[in-house]
Amino acid sequence: MKEFWSQRIRDMVPYTPGEQPKGRTFIKLNTNENPYPPAPGVTAAIQAAAGEGLRLYPDPECTQLRAALAAYHGVTPEQVFVGNGSDEVLALCFQAFFCGGKPVVFPDITYSFYPVYAALYGVDYRLIPLNEDFTVPVEAFLGENGGVLLPNPNAPTGRALCLDQIERLAAGNPEAAVVIDEAYVDFGAESALALLDRYPNLLVVRTMSKSRALAGLRVGYAIGSANLIAGLNCVKNSFNSYTVDRLAQAGALASVEDEAYFQENRRKVMHTRTRVAAELEALGFTVCPSQANFLFASHPAHGGKELLDGLRSKGVLVRWWDQPRISRYLRISVGTDGEMDALLSALKELL
Amino acid sequence: MKEFWSQRIRDMVPYTPGEQPKGRTFIKLNTNENPYPPAPGVTAAIQAAAGEGLRLYPDPECTQLRAALAAYHGVTPEQVFVGNGSDEVLALCFQAFFCGGKPVVFPDITYSFYPVYAALYGVDYRLIPLNEDFTVPVEAFLGENGGVLLPNPNAPTGRALCLDQIERLAAGNPEAAVVIDEAYVDFGAESALALLDRYPNLLVVRTMSKSRALAGLRVGYAIGSANLIAGLNCVKNSFNSYTVDRLAQAGALASVEDEAYFQENRRKVMHTRTRVAAELEALGFTVCPSQANFLFASHPAHGGKELLDGLRSKGVLVRWWDQPRISRYLRISVGTDGEMDALLSALKELL
Repeated sequence: MKEFWSQRIRDMVPYTPGEQPKGRTFIKLNTNENPYPPAPGVTAAIQAAAGEGLRLYPDPECTQLRAALAAYHGVTPEQVFVGNGSDEVLALCFQAFFCGGKPVVFPDITYSFYPVYAALYGVDYRLIPLNEDFTVPVEAFLGENGGVLLPNPNAPTGRALCLDQIERLAAGNPEAAVVIDEAYVDFGAESALALLDRYPNLLVVRTMSKSRALAGLRVGYAIGSANLIAGLNCVKNSFNSYTVDRLAQAGALASVEDEAYFQENRRKVMHTRTRVAAELEALGFTVCPSQANFLFASHPAHGGKELLDGLRSKGVLVRWWDQPRISRYLRISVGTDGEMDALLSALKELL
Repeated sequence: MKEFWSQRIRDMVPYTPGEQPKGRTFIKLNTNENPYPPAPGVTAAIQAAAGEGLRLYPDPECTQLRAALAAYHGVTPEQVFVGNGSDEVLALCFQAFFCGGKPVVFPDITYSFYPVYAALYGVDYRLIPLNEDFTVPVEAFLGENGGVLLPNPNAPTGRALCLDQIERLAAGNPEAAVVIDEAYVDFGAESALALLDRYPNLLVVRTMSKSRALAGLRVGYAIGSANLIAGLNCVKNSFNSYTVDRLAQAGALASVEDEAYFQENRRKVMHTRTRVAAELEALGFTVCPSQANFLFASHPAHGGKELLDGLRSKGVLVRWWDQPRISRYLRISVGTDGEMDALLSALKELL
């Protein structure tokens, strides 16, 4: 039944995203979406862009949005690349930087899309085991690597590296691209942006899906040296000239322009995270210290799958992986306070 | 200056899309955009989708849109794949079907993105010269190919194959995927959709950028056997789970639902095309018979580059390629009647 398929994809196991339920209404704590709406100006900007102009192609270079992001982050527009979600940006990174002879390295416990990209693009990789407490053994990432890829904070653990550790990664891999996936950085970790001046091999990847509550719009970006950004553009322009549509460009721009809303949004999520982590611990859970908009937690008396299924039966979706070392853990997105109270009530009934 | 780049992309020459002018206002006949706005319901549907829901990921399977396209084209939803513009769909085709040992074949004069995809994904290809009059020598496409890729109508010539010829391509390459790029088919050519029942190796790729005036929204799709569609899904889900954002899904759905507007739109474009082709011939141009929303024309006394530059100086953008066999030709998108009158006036002054 795979007639006509290219050989490489016949054995591919694609990435499985968290369930997007249809029909029944769940409390959705399974895909790290933001529980609050995007900045109010986003809707107005999109509505204004939704007219006759749609007949024209979008700006393939996202000039206005890149200028706004450059100003926001204190870099030049030539240091900014925008893509159709950070997943696309990461896929382009594999092609732009990791298709050499040497393996790219990433942790054994991390965003499970990474090995899928590697398989799709024929990139060798080497998994580096996290320490027992899920901290990153930085020394093991230094050396003759074909590239380094690391989320900070890491997913699904939520644990963050400090800036010194990121700097050791960049300095210790001077001939390889070091890609820091900062999808969750706005919820409390230190950004590697501060290191860009000194490390031309360092690339920071961001998404607007989480802290800017724009998962439905598909906008991600990368910031790094003009040389690395040119590499991403080379791949992008060999694949799809216009990856970011007019509405996404307009909406993302409006989000960047509302700093007060952004700060208030992330503050609320972090506040709820702190409270819920303490309440989970009071219920007997072990909770990883999280700098992200999710909590990674296990219970000594109840398996991960058991709790996943129990919560689902009570109308609460969380995420679980059938994978060594973490099969007792749940990843729980931080929702509104009301949603988290419902989660905690459901857990109390299950335990 | 290409430090850290993967070896393969260091020699890549990306695709160059037609200019998207900033600042000065041009009569834009260079990227085959539709001169009329999208269906009125599109704007309303996008505006309705631009609220709080943007915080949630889109449906990764585009379920509603695929169901609507399936009903529209008389196939099942499992036979429909939706992507972020047909350029993305074509890129996925290269990975899904063309990464075998044998070369994929396409014409020497065709959409100039095809060889770029091949280079990016390391796919061997063989160019098959069009006949002198730019018709397709179908027999030359039959045999031991690793895949067949052909636009119908072809770009930038505008010439179409009839259904019998497409059928010979599909029947004569029984072990390879035969991808018919129908970006322009709504402007008068016969669709290969009618053959799908008999040829499991046949895939039809469509875009909403041209006949549905939605270039700014980035929606393309493919229709074929469930097996081929599963191959595209395998690659897509190994690259980017959510390629089509919420607004694009909503807008595209509204477009499909307004058949009367769609028919009127394509009728107007075809009517203008017929008139302008005759007027160009009256000016001494040789004009390819076009079934697309553009005209491919050359003048015995004036080179293509000369006319391109002359028209630009008069505020009219058209497309020209510095490429053997077609360097005397211009590709002129069909605009409104007013825009085409301005083009004809400018040409009269230049000749």
